[in-house]
Amino acid sequence: MLTIAVDTMGSDNGSQPICEAIKSFLKQYKDVKIIAVGKKEELASLDGVCEVVDASQVVPMTAGALDVLRMKDSSMLKAINLVKEGKADGVVSAGSTGGFLASATITLKMIKGVKRAALVTAMPLQEKGKFMTLLDCGANIENSSEELNQFALMGSLYSKVVCNISNPRVYLLSNGSEDEKGTQLIKETNKLLKENKKINFVGNIEAREAILDKNVDVVVADGFSGNIFLKSIEGTAKYLSKLLKQSFTMNLKTKIGYLFAKKGIENLKSSMDYKAVGGALLLGVNGVVVKAHGNSDEVSFKSALNVLYKMIKNDVVNQIRQGIE
Amino acid sequence: MLTIAVDTMGSDNGSQPICEAIKSFLKQYKDVKIIAVGKKEELASLDGVCEVVDASQVVPMTAGALDVLRMKDSSMLKAINLVKEGKADGVVSAGSTGGFLASATITLKMIKGVKRAALVTAMPLQEKGKFMTLLDCGANIENSSEELNQFALMGSLYSKVVCNISNPRVYLLSNGSEDEKGTQLIKETNKLLKENKKINFVGNIEAREAILDKNVDVVVADGFSGNIFLKSIEGTAKYLSKLLKQSFTMNLKTKIGYLFAKKGIENLKSSMDYKAVGGALLLGVNGVVVKAHGNSDEVSFKSALNVLYKMIKNDVVNQIRQGIE
Repeated sequence: MLTIAVDTMGSDNGSQPICEAIKSFLKQYKDVKIIAVGKKEELASLDGVCEVVDASQVVPMTAGALDVLRMKDSSMLKAINLVKEGKADGVVSAGSTGGFLASATITLKMIKGVKRAALVTAMPLQEKGKFMTLLDCGANIENSSEELNQFALMGSLYSKVVCNISNPRVYLLSNGSEDEKGTQLIKETNKLLKENKKINFVGNIEAREAILDKNVDVVVADGFSGNIFLKSIEGTAKYLSKLLKQSFTMNLKTKIGYLFAKKGIENLKSSMDYKAVGGALLLGVNGVVVKAHGNSDEVSFKSALNVLYKMIKNDVVNQIRQGIE
Repeated sequence: MLTIAVDTMGSDNGSQPICEAIKSFLKQYKDVKIIAVGKKEELASLDGVCEVVDASQVVPMTAGALDVLRMKDSSMLKAINLVKEGKADGVVSAGSTGGFLASATITLKMIKGVKRAALVTAMPLQEKGKFMTLLDCGANIENSSEELNQFALMGSLYSKVVCNISNPRVYLLSNGSEDEKGTQLIKETNKLLKENKKINFVGNIEAREAILDKNVDVVVADGFSGNIFLKSIEGTAKYLSKLLKQSFTMNLKTKIGYLFAKKGIENLKSSMDYKAVGGALLLGVNGVVVKAHGNSDEVSFKSALNVLYKMIKNDVVNQIRQGIE
């Protein structure tokens, strides 16, 4: 039996979709216990479904780490503390990203030997059902080559467990594929990754190829570059999706065209839908910490619970512990 | 009368579309002289249209700066030398990017006071006809805050002249909009940009917002980050365009849908078409240096000639010279 602590408060869409996700998830998995933390009066629909822990405070979206740590009766801090106290194996929240990640890192502490925690996400690029793992997405600003080398190992474990890729091909984000290209940091990291026997390092890769090349399973980047990479993809997808919509509402003919092409367009839209991935995961801390999207609906929150389940079931925290030693 | 030197060789599509672009361009502009450099036997269609300078060597796509500098009778080096000798005001090539940019920088030298040359491009984002200027796109790997401060000025001049924006709003690419966010380099640069009276600096910006926010005219980045930003946009656009095509060829119904929606889709495609921008420009050297796309067709090469024309006509090299002093 594994246990997941859920912060049910602070998301853009309220606690309702989160409660629905919990109910649907527990119907599917019989080896999981969920502890839902939040305002008890809002969680009545969970009576008899799972354990509910009352919390009077809700962390606002703009809260930082210190704000969260001060809000002793907040659903967020109480959910994190369940992991710290060994009462849960992992925690998920759809609340303030900065506040959640930083307070979880401070509370749960880094795994021994891990230099920095990294934020990892899996993007539904390439063939449907195949994911590209990216880390660090922005938990850090500047990183050393040793830190990036650890990220490569953690990302590789994540790709194995969450994306079901048996021997993930790891790449280093750079401005070209050649070993001698890139900043001083990239050159140093390239050397370390080549020597790292625990991962399947293929080489450096340019951003364009990282998106288009079907062989790419894991992309390693410092937090600043990783953030630019991820946010550029999101921005472009959003921009083009807006243009697509405009292009179909031009005139009656294009509107009719849409009715016919609907199925194709919907497939395209779901390929562009990052909600399907279930948020981002903090790797390197003592416990499984998942940040669900702030505007999570039932489907996306359930997929966040799925990620937690896979990570706990496969004991990834211990695998990182052993890999880092 | 202004003069443009054109390297007609070394592009993916051969010299034919380049000759066509020259002819069409000269029909439109009466105050321009073009000197076409290349294998004379391939340029017969330019007889009586413009001056042709014979060159026996063609620089291969993989050539570096030293290769180009050694190929004394190459069309690329001969075209660049026309600018050095004062016989032309600017030069354009669709050949090897690395070879062209580096050999042009070495041959023409930096404008006095300019620390580093930057590669600038205008992306057709936002409303149709409105462009976002990005620099440096990858001429450099690592940059200092002083260099980025100069890039901001050069990009601002470019945006005024080429994109017709009267008071371009300049942003610094970072992992958030707050002044205190970002790497040490970003923090230092933010301070310099705020103090720079010659530009309209608005603040830091995240990659996602840089793409979506209609107010962004110029984005300043170091060469490494700028390359990731640009290549992520290109990769995502290419990826989604492939998906779009797939979504319309799914079945007979979606194919019929395409016929109806064709006009809208074509509008979307042209918004995603980077060829329309005419390549990238090297800013900070003594002369106007434009790198046209390697796979330029007539339209895109003509748009590269248009960029050259605007830059020369508005004396941007001298404007940079005065601005940097």
